Order: sequence, then C-alpha cells, then structure tokens
Amino acid sequence: MTQRVEVREGVLKENDRIAAELRDHLTANLTLCLNLISSPGAGKTSILEGTLEALRATPLCAAVLTGDIQTERDADRLKRYGFPALQITTGGTCHLDASMVRRSLASLPPGDLDILFIENVGNLVCPASYDLGEDAKVVVLSVAEGDDKPLKYPGVFRRARLMLLHKIDLLPYTRFSRDAAVADARRVNPEIEVVETSCFAEPGLGAWLQWIERQLTVKREAGRPARV
Amino acid sequence: MTQRVEVREGVLKENDRIAAELRDHLTANLTLCLNLISSPGAGKTSILEGTLEALRATPLCAAVLTGDIQTERDADRLKRYGFPALQITTGGTCHLDASMVRRSLASLPPGDLDILFIENVGNLVCPASYDLGEDAKVVVLSVAEGDDKPLKYPGVFRRARLMLLHKIDLLPYTRFSRDAAVADARRVNPEIEVVETSCFAEPGLGAWLQWIERQLTVKREAGRPARV
Repeated sequence: MTQRVEVREGVLKENDRIAAELRDHLTANLTLCLNLISSPGAGKTSILEGTLEALRATPLCAAVLTGDIQTERDADRLKRYGFPALQITTGGTCHLDASMVRRSLASLPPGDLDILFIENVGNLVCPASYDLGEDAKVVVLSVAEGDDKPLKYPGVFRRARLMLLHKIDLLPYTRFSRDAAVADARRVNPEIEVVETSCFAEPGLGAWLQWIERQLTVKREAGRPARV
Repeated sequence: MTQRVEVREGVLKENDRIAAELRDHLTANLTLCLNLISSPGAGKTSILEGTLEALRATPLCAAVLTGDIQTERDADRLKRYGFPALQITTGGTCHLDASMVRRSLASLPPGDLDILFIENVGNLVCPASYDLGEDAKVVVLSVAEGDDKPLKYPGVFRRARLMLLHKIDLLPYTRFSRDAAVADARRVNPEIEVVETSCFAEPGLGAWLQWIERQLTVKREAGRPARV
C-alpha cells in the first residue's frame, strides 16, 4: 500500500511539473484553456459542438483536445465546425494527464490560438486530481444525474471555477432541485460560479458563451506580455 | 512508468485472490451477489430502493453494500427498507475493491443472505477492472446519458451480464436511440442481456425483479452443496 501511494504521489508531482510548463506556454500565447469534466453522458461534447458553432461567427480561433478511453467519435463530431479537434485515446486510463495534453498540443496546426478546450474523459472522480495547465476546470452536471452530486463527488466541484447545470430543459421531468445542487456546490466551493445551459432548448448556451468571453478578457488583461 | 504498471498489476492480482475467496464464501452460502456499476447519477440507488421495497413482500433476505467517495447518503436512503445497508466510503478511491467488500461483509449482521447487492462508486471506467466476487456485474445506462456509451466505455459493457436501460421514461425528451445502444452493447458483448427500467413510470422495475429471480434459481440449482 505504501509503495502504491508513493508511486501515485510521484506520478502527480511529475504531472504538476508538466502542467506548469503548459500553463506558462499557454499564458505566453494568451491562449485561454478550459478543462471540461463531467460524468459520462453529461453533455460535454454537445456543449462543445454548440460552442464551436457559435465561435465560427467570431474572429476567435479555437481548438479542442478530446479524451476518451476508446473511439474517435468525439473528435469526428467536433471536426465539423472548422476548428482543429484532436482525439486523445487513453487506452484504458480513466483521465487525461498533462503529458497527454503536451503531446497532443504539439500536433496541432501552428498558429495563434485564442481558446483551447480540453474535453476530459467522462469521469467525475479521477480527472479532478490532474492539473492539465488549464486556466479553469469547468464541471458539467446534467440535471438528469440528480442533485446530490456536489456532495458525493466533492473533489471536482471544489476545484472547478464554473459549474454548468446542463440539460436544464429536462428539469420538469426529473426530481432535481437546482437550489439544492447550487447550495451543495457552494458548500464545497463558495467561489464556484453557476451557469444554466441546454443544447436543444432555452436558455441555450448564451450565458456560457458570455462567461468564456469574460475569461478571455481577464486572461488578456492579466497575461499580456509587458513588451506588447 | 514500468513501476506504475507493475504496482497496478500486483494490486489487481491481490484483488483477484480476495475476490475468489469471497466468491467461494458467497456460493457456499447460496448468496446471489450482484455488482451494480454506472456513471454517477444513472440511478443505481433509486433502483436499489425500488428493489428492496419489492423484496419486503417476499421471504428473501437481502443486504446492500454501497460505495461512495464521500458521504453516507446512499446507505441512509437504503436503510429505510428494513434490510442491512452499509456504506463503504472509499475516501477518494474511484472504485470498490474486494478487500473493501470483505471488510464490510464481516460487519453485516449474521444470518442467511439470499441476495447481496453491491452498489459500486459512480464511475463507468475503473470499477469494471475489479472483481468483487460477484455472480454478475450489472451496468446501468440512463437514456439521458446518450446512446454512445457502450462503444466509448467498452470495458464495463464487455464484463456485464446485464445492461439496465434506465430512466426509460425520459426517452421521448432525449435523442437516445435504444436500438443503437443495444446493438453497440452487443458488439462489445454478444451475450449481454438487456432490461428496460424506470423508477417513476412504466415499465417500472418488474423485468429487473424477474431477472434477479432467475439468477437466484440458477445459483441455487448450480450451487446447492451436495450434502443438502
């Protein structure tokens, strides 16, 4: 058991080192990096599809790295929007780590990147422990999953800057209490921001897109190199 | 990396040894053991609540071991039905292992047990790799999660004897294709059985309860000690 813990700590330490390098690199390039984490099927890929569709109408350049145990399905879905989308197939590993992101980032076409979306493997547990050099972790909670998730999986809610309450159009058909979910998320993380979204009905993705825009502004104001 | 793989293999080997002992013990006692695995929020606890409620009207004795990263919420919900329900709080670990089950089983009140339900930690990846001495793994897939899960998380669908297509009452409000989900589950596991369930609407849990009854009969016919 001791050996197991030591190996895990060593792995996380090495991960943090690579993540810090990634963060420096992305900040130097003024690239906003968002790491999306959720249960399988909460809707990350659909949210990214809607987001890329909206970004087509702007001058912003985006790219997506999307993690999965198997299959290239998500990258295939995401490639349709004219931005680079690379699949990271982990081959059994239940989360992305910083070295997978570094390797994948190196194969992106060169050019300025305003936003890098990382779609983590569908898993509410393990991905929370791995820093990927992102500016913010975004946890996606589908209302179909039940409102007890923030207390049952506190790690990811504690580390996320934003919670997307997603598939909010299903609310009338579920026993999900948005008040309980938000209150519990704030019990584990008083700073967490909350935005409600749906891909197929009102309120759509508007508030999420505005949130991204604010993060971009903050990143640019804070991170613009002094020489510019 | 080599050291990491070796440690993991050692852990899995030790787990298999304990799981084999558990299986022998449960079989000697003619206890049917079912290991429920799903994403967070697919509905495992609600299914178990409905199942225990139905079992109250039978002479069968059941117990539940329910795994979570944090909180005793699920055991609190499950205790209401008059059967023993013990929480296994993993304290960060993303799956149950056989030694956790063995330890917890030892604190169950003594007496004959017809069915032991194990509710795994909500995670579609890691729990699939850990044998808990169960007769069958049961994967719960909520239709709100999307029909692409069997190909994206093939490990658990390959190892499950049964897939519960759950929250089937939400089908009209989603873009889930039951045909695609079943076909893909059978691509990774041609033997997998499929039962549709809902806790709050038709068709209810009837087909699942009948499936359990059949497993009990099979277990008793195959496993009854020669001396009886």
